Amino acid sequence: MSTATSVPGQDPSGPVRARAEIKPGPRDQRGVLAARILAVARDEFATNGYLGTSVRAIARRADVDPALVYHYYGSKEELLRAGLRAPEAMLDRVRAAWQAPRADIGAALVTVTLRNWSDPDTSSVLRTVIQTAAHHAETRERLRHIIEHQLMGPAEIGDDDADGHRRASLIASQLLGMGMARYVWRIEPLASMADEDVVAAIGPTIQRYVDGDLS
Amino acid sequence: MSTATSVPGQDPSGPVRARAEIKPGPRDQRGVLAARILAVARDEFATNGYLGTSVRAIARRADVDPALVYHYYGSKEELLRAGLRAPEAMLDRVRAAWQAPRADIGAALVTVTLRNWSDPDTSSVLRTVIQTAAHHAETRERLRHIIEHQLMGPAEIGDDDADGHRRASLIASQLLGMGMARYVWRIEPLASMADEDVVAAIGPTIQRYVDGDLS
Repeated sequence: MSTATSVPGQDPSGPVRARAEIKPGPRDQRGVLAARILAVARDEFATNGYLGTSVRAIARRADVDPALVYHYYGSKEELLRAGLRAPEAMLDRVRAAWQAPRADIGAALVTVTLRNWSDPDTSSVLRTVIQTAAHHAETRERLRHIIEHQLMGPAEIGDDDADGHRRASLIASQLLGMGMARYVWRIEPLASMADEDVVAAIGPTIQRYVDGDLS
Repeated sequence: MSTATSVPGQDPSGPVRARAEIKPGPRDQRGVLAARILAVARDEFATNGYLGTSVRAIARRADVDPALVYHYYGSKEELLRAGLRAPEAMLDRVRAAWQAPRADIGAALVTVTLRNWSDPDTSSVLRTVIQTAAHHAETRERLRHIIEHQLMGPAEIGDDDADGHRRASLIASQLLGMGMARYVWRIEPLASMADEDVVAAIGPTIQRYVDGDLS
């Protein structure tokens, strides 16, 4: 991330509202600044939602001129899009969980979900998605895409495609609800239970959605 | 609701920023205006969150002067507080579900949750709570209170208090996740499944959290 060409989320064809007086700094500082802006943006979106977040506030917290945010990311919309990109670490963990022996997939999925919510790099993305999906149509699409293609993509579950999708959406309902209740709303005692107790309590729910009788 | 004394959410001791030129109308219109403002406010909070909502926008959509909103509700904070008050219909339904035979409580709770999300009067409160709880500490407290005292209050579940609370927080994690996935994020096919199929799929999860083995 040391050159301008690798700045995340910057669309060369997009509207870049850079002003003449912007000094993005030496080339080798650009990636650092862009990454700092993105980290602050994720945190702001995750806490305040898309509508409650302003480019001005992001710039202030990142200690840069707002014009520099536009220079790197084009618009608040583009910045959100960059903030929603799922880190590879998160997807790798989920893919690994689906490789567990069939009878252990429920526990494995709960375990990686707890891991993804505990790792600051991945939890900020999860919070951003959840905080903005309710009032921002594109994020909602993004959430659906993550669930259907990235979280459930590697799995072959269910009797057929329709049954597999049904099971995937049920798995999502419990794992997303668990993440919200434990990490966002902090509903006790779920919020402070040991990971292993959460896995013991919720793992069998997920396992049933993977291969149990749902009728 | 036809007199000023029954205006919901108005705290007589709170800051009332009414201006001299405000004409709240004849006494018998006040309840109507206050109710209209509250309905619009709920919808705005539910869609845009607390930070994304302005009193100005609420006043515009309710077709009143912003000063009238302050006159009735004192502040945006007070307006949110009024908007979060759970309608009796919602609590009555939940209380009734807990009266079902023990083995049917899981299905009964899923059924009333679907009902509460389908009824516009109650779903707007649920959406408001969920949309604002993540970035608004008081709403988060309110959500915890609803779960611990209003949704689970009538129930005596678990071996002891600690076990009962643990089960209540697990029930909440699945029912809230189901509500978000089906009605807010509209994750398919959960979003368009028939109610009876949702009850068949998720009822047993809730039943296990009510009286199953969780270790």
